[in-house]
Amino acid sequence: MTESTKYLLSEDRLPKAWYNLAADLPVPLPPPLNPGTLKPLVADDLAPIFPRAVIEQEMSAERWIDIPEPVREVYRLWRPSPLIRARRLERALDTPAHIYFKYEGVSPAGSHKPNTSVPQAFYNQQEGVKKLATETGAGQWGCSLAFAGSLFGLEVQVFMVKVSFNQKPYRRALMETYGATCIPSPSPLTEAGRAILARDPESNGSLGIAISEAVEVAIAHDDTKYALGSVLNHVCLHQTVIGEEALLQMEMAGDEPDVVIACTGGGSNFAGLAFPYIREKIKGRSIRIVGVEPHSCPTLTKGRYAYDFGDTAKLTPLMKMHTLGATFMPPGSHSGGLRYHGMSPMVSHVKELGLMEARSYHQTECFAAALQFARNEGIVPAPESSHAVKAAIDEALLAKAEGKARTILFNLSGHGHFDMQAYTDYLAGKLKDRVFDDSLLDEALADLPVID
Amino acid sequence: MTESTKYLLSEDRLPKAWYNLAADLPVPLPPPLNPGTLKPLVADDLAPIFPRAVIEQEMSAERWIDIPEPVREVYRLWRPSPLIRARRLERALDTPAHIYFKYEGVSPAGSHKPNTSVPQAFYNQQEGVKKLATETGAGQWGCSLAFAGSLFGLEVQVFMVKVSFNQKPYRRALMETYGATCIPSPSPLTEAGRAILARDPESNGSLGIAISEAVEVAIAHDDTKYALGSVLNHVCLHQTVIGEEALLQMEMAGDEPDVVIACTGGGSNFAGLAFPYIREKIKGRSIRIVGVEPHSCPTLTKGRYAYDFGDTAKLTPLMKMHTLGATFMPPGSHSGGLRYHGMSPMVSHVKELGLMEARSYHQTECFAAALQFARNEGIVPAPESSHAVKAAIDEALLAKAEGKARTILFNLSGHGHFDMQAYTDYLAGKLKDRVFDDSLLDEALADLPVID
Repeated sequence: MTESTKYLLSEDRLPKAWYNLAADLPVPLPPPLNPGTLKPLVADDLAPIFPRAVIEQEMSAERWIDIPEPVREVYRLWRPSPLIRARRLERALDTPAHIYFKYEGVSPAGSHKPNTSVPQAFYNQQEGVKKLATETGAGQWGCSLAFAGSLFGLEVQVFMVKVSFNQKPYRRALMETYGATCIPSPSPLTEAGRAILARDPESNGSLGIAISEAVEVAIAHDDTKYALGSVLNHVCLHQTVIGEEALLQMEMAGDEPDVVIACTGGGSNFAGLAFPYIREKIKGRSIRIVGVEPHSCPTLTKGRYAYDFGDTAKLTPLMKMHTLGATFMPPGSHSGGLRYHGMSPMVSHVKELGLMEARSYHQTECFAAALQFARNEGIVPAPESSHAVKAAIDEALLAKAEGKARTILFNLSGHGHFDMQAYTDYLAGKLKDRVFDDSLLDEALADLPVID
Repeated sequence: MTESTKYLLSEDRLPKAWYNLAADLPVPLPPPLNPGTLKPLVADDLAPIFPRAVIEQEMSAERWIDIPEPVREVYRLWRPSPLIRARRLERALDTPAHIYFKYEGVSPAGSHKPNTSVPQAFYNQQEGVKKLATETGAGQWGCSLAFAGSLFGLEVQVFMVKVSFNQKPYRRALMETYGATCIPSPSPLTEAGRAILARDPESNGSLGIAISEAVEVAIAHDDTKYALGSVLNHVCLHQTVIGEEALLQMEMAGDEPDVVIACTGGGSNFAGLAFPYIREKIKGRSIRIVGVEPHSCPTLTKGRYAYDFGDTAKLTPLMKMHTLGATFMPPGSHSGGLRYHGMSPMVSHVKELGLMEARSYHQTECFAAALQFARNEGIVPAPESSHAVKAAIDEALLAKAEGKARTILFNLSGHGHFDMQAYTDYLAGKLKDRVFDDSLLDEALADLPVID
C-alpha cells in the first residue's frame, strides 16, 4: 500500500451548510456602528448596497446557514477542493512533522475568492439585481466576481486600482474573458472619481477610491448592488466551506492538526479554514490557530483594536477591528491581497479572545519559502499564500529542532500564475524588505474616530 | 440525489502501466530511418541523446509498460486528473448531447506535458544523467521539464525561441521558479546558435534552431541528455495515463463516448486520450476519434504522408508522418503548441489506417468557443485546447440539429493562465484568420527527401 498524497471528498460530501462562528463565540461580536449616529447598524442602513439575504447573513447568529443548491452546483465545478499532504516537502525539511495543505487554487479564478463571489452573485440574481459593482486591487476579487456574474447572468463592473490596472493587464483580460468590464480607478464615470481626477489627473488610485466609486454606482442605480470580497461576516461565513471540508479530509487522513495556519489580509481565507477549527477549540480540542501577515502591513500584530472606517474615504460603517488607521498607506508589496489597513471584525474579535495568535514575515523570506514549496510540491503559491507556507515551514523546522511530532495544516489560498512578475523580481534580487516604521502608525492611529 | 459534475478516481486507481498502441496496430508502424544510411534506426543511433530506458520504450512493442513507483508518486501530486461533465455548457447549447472533458490543466505546469517530463526526468536520473537540455516554443514544455527536473535533482537548461522568450517573460519566470535556466535561442552558447547569430544577429529564432542547440549541448557533454515533449513514441506512451483514467471515469459516469476529441500539434495530448480508445475501437467498439488542428498549420488535413525530418535544420532521424515539409514556416498564431510542421508518426499511422478523422479550425472561432466554455464552466482553456473545445461544441450542436443523443469526450489539455495576451488580442478584435495558402505548401513539400 502506497502512502496517500491527496485526500479527495466525493461531491456528495460537499458541505450543505456554512458555519457561522458568531453562534459559538463566548463573548458577542461588537456591532458595527452607523458613522452618523454612532448607533449599532440596522439592516436598512445596508439595503442600498447589499441584497436582503446577504444583510441577513451579515447579522445572523444562526450556527448553520444552508448553502442553496444552485450555489452548491457551481461549487462542484471545483469543490470539494483537495487536501494534500506535502510529503516531498516534509522529506526535504527532514522533519518529523506532517504538513497538510488545503488547496484553494483549483478554483476557476485561482483562489478562495469564488467561495463567496458565487453565493453573492446568486443572492443578488434571486432578488432581481441586474448588475454588480465592485473594486479590486491586485485583481483576484474582480476576477472571482466576474466569473460568478457570468454564471448567473449578472453584469459585473470592476473598478480596478489604476496602478494595478496598468501593471496587471492579464487580470483585466481574465475579467473580460468572463464578460465583465474592468475600469481603471479613479475613473470619470463617478463623482468620486471625477473629484480625484480634477485634483490629480495622474492619480494612481487606491483601494479606498475604488470602493467609493463602486459604492456610488450601486447607490445610484436601483438594479445595481455592491459586492465585497473580504472583511465582512457574510464573506467569512461563505469561506467556511474550506474548513468544513478540511475537517472531513483530516479524518480521512487519520490525522489531527496541532496547528492551523492561514495568511490574513482582510481575513477571509483565514476565517474560511480556521473558524470551523476555532469551534472545535471552543469545544475543548487542543489546537493552535495562527494568522500570518506581511511585516509591511502588520494589522493583527501592531494595529490597535478600535472602531474605524473600512475605507480610506471614510464612507463605510464603523467596525471594531484591528486597524492601522484608515488613512494608513501600506508600502507597496507583491502581496496586494494583504495590503489592507483593517482586519475582519470577527477575526479581530477572535484574536482579542485569545483564540488565535498572529505573526508577521518579510516578503523575501516568504518568497524563499514559496520557491522551496514549488520545487517540492510543484505548485507556485500566490504571494499572499506564501506567508502561510513560510509559517508552516517554520513550524515544521521547530518540530524537527524539538524532535517532536506535529501535524500542521495550512491554507494554500491561491496559485501564483498571475503573479509571476513578483517571482521574476524576487529571482532577480530586486525585492527589498523594510523595517516597519512605527512612527507612520502613530500618525495614522492618531486620526482614529473617537468612540466612547 | 444531485447530478454529478466531476468524476474523481481515488489514488489507488491511478494506472499502474502505460498503454503502448504499437502492440495492437493491425499494420506495424513504419520505422524511423537513419538519414545517412536510410536504414531503420537502431538503439545506438539514439544513445547520445536519450537514456537507455527511454530508447527501449521508443522501440518497444510490449502492450503494457509499468509506470515506475517514483513516477506514480509524483503523478499523485495532481493525478488522477478529474473528468468533468460540462453540464452548464450543455444547457447553454440546449443540446441533447452529453459533454465530458478530461482536465489536464490541474498539473503543476498547467498542461498534460508533465505526464512525460516526469518519467523522462526519472529515467535520466536513474542512469546517472546530471543535466537535461531541451527546447521550448511557447514555454509549456520547458516549464514541465523544469518542474520534473526540480523533483529529481537534475539541472535543466531550456533553449526558448527568442521571439517567445521576449513575448512571454512569465513562462521564463516559471521555469526559473522551478530552478531551471532559460536561454533565448539562438544563443552564443552553441555552435549552431553562433552560426545563426553570425548571419543574423537579430534572429528571432525558431523551434528548429532551438532543437539544434539543445541536441548539441546533449551530445557535447557525457552527463547531459536531451528531452523531447511530443511527437515520439515514448512521449505518446507516457500520455496514455490520460485515456486509461478516462476509461475508468466514463465507467463511473455510466456513459460511453460516441466521439473522442483532442487537439493535435505534435500529437501527444491527442495520443494520450485517444490511444486507449483506439485500442477499444480496434477490438470492435463503435467510436469516432477526432484530431483537431489549426487551419494555419494543417498537418493532418493537408500535409503529405511521407518520410521527413523532425526539425528545420534536418539533423534528426527521418520519420514517416504527415508533414508540411521541414522547411515550412507556419504563420504566427497564439497556439504555439500546435505550430509544428510534422505529426507524431504513430498518430499519422493511425490516420492512414482510417482509425481517426481530422479537421481544422481558424483561431478566432476557437477563441469564441473558448469564451463560451469559460463563461459556463469557469476554466479558461489554453489556445491549443480551444481547438478541441470548438470541435466538441460543434458535435454537440450537430446532435441538437439531428435531435439525437450523443456522448462527447474531449481533452482539455491545459489552462490559458499564461496565454492571457491571446485573449486580450481576441477581445480587442486584433486576431486575424488567414485562408491557408496552398502554394506555400507545394514549395515546402517539393523539398521533401526522396526515399524509395
